[in-house]
Parts: sequence; structure tokens; C-alpha cells
Amino acid sequence: MLVDGVPYRAIWLDDDGWSVRIIDQTRLPWEWHVPRLTCLSEAADAISAMRVRGAPLIGATAAFGLCLGLREDASNAALEQGRAELLATRPTAVNLRWALEVLTESVQPLPLSDRVAAAYARAAAIAEAEAATCRAIGDHGLALIREAADAKCEGEPVNVLTHCNAGWLATVDWGTALAPVYRAHDAGIPVHVWVDETRPRNQGASLTAWELGRHGVPHTLVADNAGGHLMERGLVDLCLVGTDRTTRNGDVANKIGTYLKALAAADNNVPFYVALPGSTIDWETASGADIPIEERAAEEVTHIPGRTDAGEITRVALGPEGTPAANPAFDVTPAHLVTALVTDRGVSDPTTEALAGLYPERAG
Amino acid sequence: MLVDGVPYRAIWLDDDGWSVRIIDQTRLPWEWHVPRLTCLSEAADAISAMRVRGAPLIGATAAFGLCLGLREDASNAALEQGRAELLATRPTAVNLRWALEVLTESVQPLPLSDRVAAAYARAAAIAEAEAATCRAIGDHGLALIREAADAKCEGEPVNVLTHCNAGWLATVDWGTALAPVYRAHDAGIPVHVWVDETRPRNQGASLTAWELGRHGVPHTLVADNAGGHLMERGLVDLCLVGTDRTTRNGDVANKIGTYLKALAAADNNVPFYVALPGSTIDWETASGADIPIEERAAEEVTHIPGRTDAGEITRVALGPEGTPAANPAFDVTPAHLVTALVTDRGVSDPTTEALAGLYPERAG
Repeated sequence: MLVDGVPYRAIWLDDDGWSVRIIDQTRLPWEWHVPRLTCLSEAADAISAMRVRGAPLIGATAAFGLCLGLREDASNAALEQGRAELLATRPTAVNLRWALEVLTESVQPLPLSDRVAAAYARAAAIAEAEAATCRAIGDHGLALIREAADAKCEGEPVNVLTHCNAGWLATVDWGTALAPVYRAHDAGIPVHVWVDETRPRNQGASLTAWELGRHGVPHTLVADNAGGHLMERGLVDLCLVGTDRTTRNGDVANKIGTYLKALAAADNNVPFYVALPGSTIDWETASGADIPIEERAAEEVTHIPGRTDAGEITRVALGPEGTPAANPAFDVTPAHLVTALVTDRGVSDPTTEALAGLYPERAG
Repeated sequence: MLVDGVPYRAIWLDDDGWSVRIIDQTRLPWEWHVPRLTCLSEAADAISAMRVRGAPLIGATAAFGLCLGLREDASNAALEQGRAELLATRPTAVNLRWALEVLTESVQPLPLSDRVAAAYARAAAIAEAEAATCRAIGDHGLALIREAADAKCEGEPVNVLTHCNAGWLATVDWGTALAPVYRAHDAGIPVHVWVDETRPRNQGASLTAWELGRHGVPHTLVADNAGGHLMERGLVDLCLVGTDRTTRNGDVANKIGTYLKALAAADNNVPFYVALPGSTIDWETASGADIPIEERAAEEVTHIPGRTDAGEITRVALGPEGTPAANPAFDVTPAHLVTALVTDRGVSDPTTEALAGLYPERAG
């Protein structure tokens, strides 16, 4: 996507053809910093410090990280050690494990002299595939936005509400929930996005607002509390969010607060779409009630980072000192509140049958 | 209520018997400051700068403000001018206008020499009446909390979710939504409050968490996004919120985000109670759809005040510079999502008939 007119991806090879550039997302939206990764440890550090985030981007970063490691030592021992180091950065990230396995399997049969080139080719293919998957989600979602546009007066924007950041910063390109928005915008369909700030980590205010602004997509930041009111007053045409995990029955786990928007959408007859790559469908889990919800640090609720008027990046405490706080990171939106799932293979009802129809090889 | 063991109200006469003390709520939760108001202009300033807030407390502050003015000049001209000055601080506050009218009417027939004493007596009566009304709400709500406690295992706390600040800081004493909580806690019923931080102005994090903590009521601060998840997982026994305005059909306008919690409560069979003094029922308005919703400054969304680790009170920007933001201040929860209204005259169904039964003299 564009950053003030210049096309970017969230990860790319530098001009030297081997070192890797990422956008430091911990400094957004306040500072634009594109660190150069030159060794495996720098890649591992970028992942663990969350300078890169989002399953597809973490996978691609790990793959390129392994390439950087092989450049220094292409032996099996180094390969194994590098894989372990990268895997340890976010041990529960399924995509990370998968990317490392794919890369390892593709280079292990090769002589040492061929491994580096093969690894770079495979890492690039992983990144390309992630981008293509997101673009496909964008194509399928575009049809839904076009449909909404056709139902409006000529030139009136389609108002999309989104939660958290499921944009190109979380993937390699395009994003999941935002892919249809970028496709529509680029196709000349007037679209406007209500951006939930997404407390407590504020990914909406800091990342989604930044992405959309830099690409030139009209948008308005709102407190998470506002969405219900916006829907009550007819100011939202459709909701479009991402998901971390979709269970086989079509329930979706996504950033905390998603469920509240789905309830408001249902109450106001606003379509509620969830965008996802097929890789995030959890075929082993029967329903959302079985998903354990990560409890994150209370500090994320009691403190908030931002930029002072003087330009300093700092954090401030919001409540009384020592206030106890709870911080569940995700919630579950039951399938009956989801109008449709927007996947890389098409738009699907949120049911086991419909998903299995799209992904027969994985449904088992 | 208690502040670390010492009983307080949100406004009181100082030991000198004439000057007035308030708690500067703009400095909470970070600093405890009880400014002394010694003239009408200081009272007006306290209201307009929102050092005092909440309809009942604003009314009481205005009444005492007029007393301070009469001390200096008890003439009709001064009375009229003082009333105008106080009214201009928050021109849409119904309670403010009412308190000033009541006070003016009670002193205007009197000789100048008797006006000051009569005004102080009337202002004190207004404050007492507000406190008594809230205490009555507390009594009626206490029965609901007791009922919830009886349904739980012995000693297990009743988990109450509240939104914004409808506590004693917003009234003269007790609060509206929090009155039943304080009554229950003081009666020895174990109660625990989930405190919505209440973006964008964070009244939950800054005021509700502070009040509850100082009085010793167990509570946990959560992001506004968390409530749906908490209800999905059975961690909320009842919701209890205040309201700025209840229309004659039982729809309630309250702080933005209230509606989302009411939807989640309905979806999870959690009782959703709204506490209010009868004075906030708007008998002229047929339903919530007719309520204009105040749009506040975008800055409240894009910036947030807090205390740095170094102890400085400052504000930080959350999003990219210049991000457009919208800030609707209230939303409407339709009556069908409200389990019951907890009024100073009893618990009522959210219907015109039931409300008219409780307030026959006002229903007209």
C-alpha cells in the first residue's frame, strides 16, 4: 500500500539484495523508522519486541531471518539453532512455526552452497503468497463493498466500521479486513472508515488510522464506545473486522470488543463481515467457547503510551495508583452474529459445511 | 462516602460556616485538592471548568454560589446578575436552572437583611434533598443486589458492571448507579465492581475507580471493550449504570457505550439496571430516537490526559497527527434492553405506565 504516495510492503529486501527492511511498528504512528535487519538475531528481536506483528508478517520475518542466519552459516546445526531461536520469540504463533518448517524443509536436502539462494527464494515465495492471499480476500470483499455502494446514492461513501488493525501492517501487504477497503478505494468506490481506537493497546488509533491516512483513505477515529451509537443512527453500512482464529463452526475470536460491535450490527441490521485467510481456521476446535482467552498485563489498561505536545513519546497512568485491572485480549463472536466470512477463496456462510466446501483439503 | 476512612460529601460548608468546599474533580485521580469557594465567581468558575460535574452537584454548587453572591450584595439587581452568571456556566443543565430558580424564589420576597441566611438554608436543603434522593435509589437498588447475592454461593461477591461515573462525585452523596453498591458494601454484602474505563473522557478509570477504592469497595478496571467478554464468560451478575435523561417510554440516554453493554447483557441474560432520580425523566420526549446527541471535541478522542512515571500530569496524543475523529458523547439504550429502572421511588419497568405510576404528579 501507499505511504504518502510511495508503495510499500511491511517487509522487503533492501537494495543490497540480502538485508531485510521492516517498518518499526512500535514507533508508529509517531515516528517512521525502517530498521535494516542484517542477521538472524536482529530478525528474532524484531519479532519478540513486536516491531513486526500479525501472523503473516511474523511468518515472513522469521523466514527472512532464517535466510540471514544461513548466510553466515549454512550448516544443519546452525539451521536448527536458528530455527529454535526464531521459534522462541513467539512460541504460540502458528504461522511462525509453519514458515520456519517450510523453509527448513526446502533447504535441508540441498548442498550447503545452494542453501542461501534457495532460502531467499522460499522466503520471498512465502511473502508473495501471503500478499496474494490478502489480495484475494480483498477481491472477494470488494464485491460486498461494491454491493453496498450500489445501494447508496451516487457518490455517497460506503461507511465501513473496523476494529483493531487488520491492515497491511499486520500482513505483508493489503491486510485482511482492510484489503477490501483498499481495493474499493483504489477502484474509485467512495469509502469511509470508522476506526475503533481499540483499547487497551490502541491498534486502531495508532496503526489503522495511520495506514488509512497514508494511503489516502477517508477515515474517522472513534472511541470503541461509539460504534453502537453510529449504527443506531444509520451511519455504518457494514462492519469488517479480522480474526485471530475461526473455529470450525464459524465462531470467531478477535480483538476484545469485536463481539460488542457484532451485537450492535445485528441489532441494527448492519452486515457484519469477518475477513480471514483459510490458514487461521482452527478445524480442531468445535466452537468459540472452547478457546482460552489470553489475559494480558494490567498495565496495558492502567497506562497508555502517546506523544506529549512537546513531541516526547511517553506513557501516562490513567487511573489512581495501584488500581487493579483486568485485560482479556480477545473475545468470541458467535457465528450467528456473523453475516459472512470473507476468505481468500470466497465469501462463506459461518458454518462448518460452508467452510469445508471452500477448504475441503483441510476440513478433513 | 468515605475517602480513606473519612466521610465526605462532594460539596460542604467550611468550618467558618459560610465558605464552600468542593473536591476538584479535574485533578482526580492524581491529586486531592479541595478548593475553598469564597465568592460567586469562584463557584461559577468551578462549574464551568468542570471541577464539579454531575447534574445534582452542579445544582447544589450553583445554589451555594448564589449564597456567596448574596453575602456581598443582597439586592435584587445583584441576585439577578448572579443568577445569570451562574446559569451561563452550563446553559443546558436543567438542574442548574432549577436550583437557581428555587433559590431565587425563596429569597426574593424577603427583606435584604434576611436573604443570606434564608439562601444558605435553602441551598443546604437542596443539597440534603439530592443526597436523600440518591440514598433512596440506593435503598431500592440494594434489594436487587441482595437478591443477586442470595442466588450465589455464600461469600461469593456479586459482580456488578458499571459504565462512566454515576457515583457520589457526580451527586452530593451516594451517587445514582453506585448508591446501591455502597449500600450493599456497607451492609456487608460482598460486592465487586467491573469499572469500564469509559473512553474518551475516562470517568470510570479516573473517578469511579477512585471513589470505589477510597471507600474500600473491591473493583477491577477494564477497557470498555471487555464487558461483552466478561458477560459471555459468566463473570457479571448485573449491570448498573446511570442516565442523563430517560424519555417517557423508558429509553435511556447515557454515556456513549452504555448501549453496547445493554446489548451484551441481553445476549447473556444479565440484568441491566439503570439508576435515576425522577428529576431526570423527560416527560416531554416520546422516545430516545428524538434525543439530539451532543458531539464533543475531537481532541478528547485523539488525546488523553494522565500522569507520567515522573509524576507530571500531562496529555498525550494517541494517533497520527491530524487524525480526524468523531466524539458523540451519549448513546440511547432502548427500553426493551433495560431490565428495570431503579428510581428514588422504587424499581420500575421501563414503560410510560410504570413511570407515571411512580411519578403521577409529573407525568401529567
